[in-house]
Amino acid sequence: MKKLIFSICSLLLFGTGLFGQTRPREAGVPFGILSPGNLNAITDVPGVKVGHFTKIEGSNIRTGVTAILPHGGNIFQQKVPGAVYVGNGFGKLAGTTQVMELGSIETPIILTNTLSVAAGIEGAVKYSLSLPGNETIHSVNAVVGETNDAYLNDIRGMHISAEEVMETIKSAKSGPVEEGNVGAGTGTICFGWKGGIGTSSRKLPESLGGYTVGVLVQTNFGGNLQIGGVPVGEKLGIYPFKDALEKSDGSCMIVIATDAPVLDRNLERMAKRAMMGLAKTGGIASNGSGDYVIAFSTAENLRIPYVKPNLELEKAEFLQNDDMTSLFLAVIEATEEAIINSLFAAETMEGKEGRIVEKLPTEKVLEWIKNKN
Amino acid sequence: MKKLIFSICSLLLFGTGLFGQTRPREAGVPFGILSPGNLNAITDVPGVKVGHFTKIEGSNIRTGVTAILPHGGNIFQQKVPGAVYVGNGFGKLAGTTQVMELGSIETPIILTNTLSVAAGIEGAVKYSLSLPGNETIHSVNAVVGETNDAYLNDIRGMHISAEEVMETIKSAKSGPVEEGNVGAGTGTICFGWKGGIGTSSRKLPESLGGYTVGVLVQTNFGGNLQIGGVPVGEKLGIYPFKDALEKSDGSCMIVIATDAPVLDRNLERMAKRAMMGLAKTGGIASNGSGDYVIAFSTAENLRIPYVKPNLELEKAEFLQNDDMTSLFLAVIEATEEAIINSLFAAETMEGKEGRIVEKLPTEKVLEWIKNKN
Amino acid sequence: MKKLIFSICSLLLFGTGLFGQTRPREAGVPFGILSPGNLNAITDVPGVKVGHFTKIEGSNIRTGVTAILPHGGNIFQQKVPGAVYVGNGFGKLAGTTQVMELGSIETPIILTNTLSVAAGIEGAVKYSLSLPGNETIHSVNAVVGETNDAYLNDIRGMHISAEEVMETIKSAKSGPVEEGNVGAGTGTICFGWKGGIGTSSRKLPESLGGYTVGVLVQTNFGGNLQIGGVPVGEKLGIYPFKDALEKSDGSCMIVIATDAPVLDRNLERMAKRAMMGLAKTGGIASNGSGDYVIAFSTAENLRIPYVKPNLELEKAEFLQNDDMTSLFLAVIEATEEAIINSLFAAETMEGKEGRIVEKLPTEKVLEWIKNKN
Amino acid sequence: MKKLIFSICSLLLFGTGLFGQTRPREAGVPFGILSPGNLNAITDVPGVKVGHFTKIEGSNIRTGVTAILPHGGNIFQQKVPGAVYVGNGFGKLAGTTQVMELGSIETPIILTNTLSVAAGIEGAVKYSLSLPGNETIHSVNAVVGETNDAYLNDIRGMHISAEEVMETIKSAKSGPVEEGNVGAGTGTICFGWKGGIGTSSRKLPESLGGYTVGVLVQTNFGGNLQIGGVPVGEKLGIYPFKDALEKSDGSCMIVIATDAPVLDRNLERMAKRAMMGLAKTGGIASNGSGDYVIAFSTAENLRIPYVKPNLELEKAEFLQNDDMTSLFLAVIEATEEAIINSLFAAETMEGKEGRIVEKLPTEKVLEWIKNKN
Repeated sequence: MKKLIFSICSLLLFGTGLFGQTRPREAGVPFGILSPGNLNAITDVPGVKVGHFTKIEGSNIRTGVTAILPHGGNIFQQKVPGAVYVGNGFGKLAGTTQVMELGSIETPIILTNTLSVAAGIEGAVKYSLSLPGNETIHSVNAVVGETNDAYLNDIRGMHISAEEVMETIKSAKSGPVEEGNVGAGTGTICFGWKGGIGTSSRKLPESLGGYTVGVLVQTNFGGNLQIGGVPVGEKLGIYPFKDALEKSDGSCMIVIATDAPVLDRNLERMAKRAMMGLAKTGGIASNGSGDYVIAFSTAENLRIPYVKPNLELEKAEFLQNDDMTSLFLAVIEATEEAIINSLFAAETMEGKEGRIVEKLPTEKVLEWIKNKN
Repeated sequence: MKKLIFSICSLLLFGTGLFGQTRPREAGVPFGILSPGNLNAITDVPGVKVGHFTKIEGSNIRTGVTAILPHGGNIFQQKVPGAVYVGNGFGKLAGTTQVMELGSIETPIILTNTLSVAAGIEGAVKYSLSLPGNETIHSVNAVVGETNDAYLNDIRGMHISAEEVMETIKSAKSGPVEEGNVGAGTGTICFGWKGGIGTSSRKLPESLGGYTVGVLVQTNFGGNLQIGGVPVGEKLGIYPFKDALEKSDGSCMIVIATDAPVLDRNLERMAKRAMMGLAKTGGIASNGSGDYVIAFSTAENLRIPYVKPNLELEKAEFLQNDDMTSLFLAVIEATEEAIINSLFAAETMEGKEGRIVEKLPTEKVLEWIKNKN
Repeated sequence: MKKLIFSICSLLLFGTGLFGQTRPREAGVPFGILSPGNLNAITDVPGVKVGHFTKIEGSNIRTGVTAILPHGGNIFQQKVPGAVYVGNGFGKLAGTTQVMELGSIETPIILTNTLSVAAGIEGAVKYSLSLPGNETIHSVNAVVGETNDAYLNDIRGMHISAEEVMETIKSAKSGPVEEGNVGAGTGTICFGWKGGIGTSSRKLPESLGGYTVGVLVQTNFGGNLQIGGVPVGEKLGIYPFKDALEKSDGSCMIVIATDAPVLDRNLERMAKRAMMGLAKTGGIASNGSGDYVIAFSTAENLRIPYVKPNLELEKAEFLQNDDMTSLFLAVIEATEEAIINSLFAAETMEGKEGRIVEKLPTEKVLEWIKNKN
Repeated sequence: MKKLIFSICSLLLFGTGLFGQTRPREAGVPFGILSPGNLNAITDVPGVKVGHFTKIEGSNIRTGVTAILPHGGNIFQQKVPGAVYVGNGFGKLAGTTQVMELGSIETPIILTNTLSVAAGIEGAVKYSLSLPGNETIHSVNAVVGETNDAYLNDIRGMHISAEEVMETIKSAKSGPVEEGNVGAGTGTICFGWKGGIGTSSRKLPESLGGYTVGVLVQTNFGGNLQIGGVPVGEKLGIYPFKDALEKSDGSCMIVIATDAPVLDRNLERMAKRAMMGLAKTGGIASNGSGDYVIAFSTAENLRIPYVKPNLELEKAEFLQNDDMTSLFLAVIEATEEAIINSLFAAETMEGKEGRIVEKLPTEKVLEWIKNKN
């Protein structure tokens, strides 16, 4: 009975969302062949938590922070296998080299604006130092990504503080994830329209392992927008090298979570596929893009304890190369959908110097998609 | 006058091709916002030559060789800036580390089947050693890629010889490029249908530099085929994890040529974007894929002479990062189109053990696309 | 006349240093076959400036900041070709991916302690935003490295502020560079002895181009110390897996400057060789090491302006692959010497919780070296 | 009793070798702090086999093949975890991208001359196809490295055949490994003296896990030779930029075997340390060097079967990052010693066009080392 109720809730959420937005899948936009999880969100991966801090103040501050937690415990003490893939490196993602070297992530993943990466690091470090059990640690590798919200936000004002980052981490929770003009997506722009935070997931059928892949994106990039097979950018007359705004460079931060037991090398391969999902939306990874993908596994038997007996072998069970393809497909589909979700959820915003970035005309888009079929 | 006639010829070629095949663009398939070059082929980049050797013998041999020459001269003596990007490295591409280290390519690029890479190297090396002026060289870095045509071809028979590779190189020419079941694409399979060789190009408007980008592909991979916004794979019922054949891993070799003066780092960035074009066709870079992209610039002032005065500086003029975005878009569009071109040009083939791989039902596909608009 | 006086000064500096320390070369330690520059310091590369901020307060604060400026102008407006090589990535170096993607460096390079990277970024960003001409920029890629001085310093206290980082940058100057317990090397440990900042340079003979290579290191790593062919670690009984202190992990930050006109790919190759210089001192790049090398060229014709006319080609003259070997050797030799210089210059220090790290017994070492020859 | 006899044998072998050569360690050259295995050879790692084919014919042919087998079974069916590190990529090592992507090695590792890589691939592929159980495989990733022996060998004659490569593989055996002018080292040159094949090993004490690390090198590179702390190159007057021969570029192939249970990411980290061992001999990784390191683990529980049940997890026990440092040190020490071993074992050789490459004057070197202590 409980399950039934939950399923009904899921359906409701799935449709209009807890937050009143109609999500494109529910409105009829097709997104591949695999099925999403209950919430169609990164939080479908058990244990993953997301926190948003949205800062809209006066006429010039339009920014925020989003924190993604691989699990609800002490991440530094129970690190998760992780990987980073650089789609295009015009960005400031902190923490990359240690993740690549050690194959693990030891802090929440923080997303914010370009000039607040220092605050993001300081917040993630102070949070880690402050946790019970971490009293003597003296090295923390904070993973902090960003995109540039300078068009709508007074980015030079550096309006995010380390304390706000810490609060964002502490506020993270499971369940539905708010999309659009929230957290690190508060002031971002995507394909010339208002971008923001988006999320999606895929649940593999049991015959393929039954694993879940969740994706969360902070969309702030450009290209030739395509939705459900419709060349939206061309139809709306907003595409690269036509329009000054559209030509402007951007970035996309992509975070992938999975409960599949996957080690760092195969996590990196999954991360690589996220750029293929981005490509399907029409993104082109322009010169000025900071397009990064961070992937981690929540599988409990792959946790890496900070302290372990000397020379003790890691006893792990993990998926082999041969079983990765369905997870690759899940990443591609969920990334495409998460990006489109961010566009549908975002609302028109007025910001710095009275600039306005319009919401994607989703009615028109949905009609085009409907007529096509 | 001469120019006019050439243009007419181009139009004719452009439509049905010199080879009697109707190309998808002419049939109404949309491919982005940039315009192709005259031939819509890699040979639109001045100086680039392509040679095919097609080996169809008895009932079991269905394979071949394709050679791409950056220019018509002695490539070893006049190396070109080059780069390699590994989309997914389940493949045997030879020559990668030296291209990455030195940023240059010094032989024709050879494509063939997986077990004939040795023949490809031997052929490219012997060809290089034999050229006038190369009498004393004793180190040659052959760039040889492959995909696996074992379903239709007796690949274990290793039916390609070094001599055939040398002949392929010598036969290379400018002008229209044959597509489909030719050369290295003779026995390949793509999205469950007959794949092969495909090519396309983009010519940037003068306001973006007027440069040309050409792409040639050897298609042998799987995924969820999408053409012109139509989910062809789903409509035909042939998509990953549904059908045994379709699930089978594959590979795609992608070669990018440009006359834009671009050094190795930015060539690598261009190469990376080819995987985004592949993604738009529905490719998923499955675990077993050998997806590689090789890019080079034909710009004459960037040639790297084998022998030069000691300590002489290279005087070069090249595009900077800020001007790369339009070239990235050109790569994405031309790669997508080249892949679809390979599918339209390929014909049903019977091969090893009586196996048959069907031609994509292009009539049906075109109708879907027509009805959609 | 002026020149003569300068030469005399150089000789003097060269010997005992402006700072009263006897440098090992002067004391008879052999370091390869190439000659150092006048100051045997990174500042032998014209235009390069170094600033140190040393923070020794109470009994527990033993840390600092070192800033290296590629030139004295507005670095953001006149970026320099740059590269990063990760020897071992257990570290928090910020800014790596953008340097790798774009091949350039746009801020001073900041070195500090592990938990002050956020302060380093904030300082470098605020400094960049504040410069005349940078009023409208809204994206800055700060390059900030670190090693962990937690044994002697209250690192969890995060005692470096963004303002101190800005001051360090502003204080940077040409001329002799102080070594030992200064700046980012204030609290570091190397091979079980007091480490710190070290620097060295090589000036190629005119027959090899006459270029200068300068290296600055922040030494905080372990291994089996070797100086001038003498197995110092073994003779002193302090080597890996023998002694608890020695076994402790560490890190080494290495910065390479050159006036040779070298683009990013070859700068990365130079960076790679620094780890070979480190190896010659007995370093082993242990699991816990953050060993990073940052290299840049000060060649004026390779500067990358922030704003340039659209599509304008970069006209550059640069060294080709064939001429790199002597620069590789220069990097190896100068890195080895810079590391040993840091050990000779550092003095015994008492720090956090009364811990004491002794100065390397240099008298003994010099005697061993003398007797050997 | 048996054990005692074996130990005596080991001592004998250890000293003058089965092959009559005095090895430097026995002659008093110091090589670090860890102890070698019984044979001080790569074959100290249980299961590893080595085969040499030496081709000395007429006055112009001085070349060969060396094959290293991770184990004595069907390697394709029981792949081993593997990694490749590129020290300097001016070389033709085949098979790199698949090893990096999949983290495994599936053929014997073949070393030969630069222009015989094709023969090496063909031989390794044909050998793999021919094994019982491999009747239906149609994709083989051959790992084939090379150095350039053109000074003494008629390399353009391409005198190695696929059949000779297959024979070399089949001849591989455990036990002592011949060094010097054998196999792939027949015609190589190192530091201006006759180079060749060298090998060494380290056995960690039980307190560090008791694992064995073995190294085999094909030495063909230059630099500023240093042995046992003595600047041999300078004392003999043969060092870079002094002598034409010495200046000539070269290469070093390095193969690392270990029985430690180490997965691919940590194998790559071990591989990286081999270049630090090379650095200690005075190697500088010149522009023209093809310096590659291939590492694999023989741990049986890490074998990767070619065919496995769908979705079955790999159950593995492996060393974690924290326990890698002693293995890093073992790699550094064994690589340094293997290189010096190759120089001591190699004999003066006359080859192509009457050219002579002298044996290193080992008596002199040993005297210098003796006097030093």
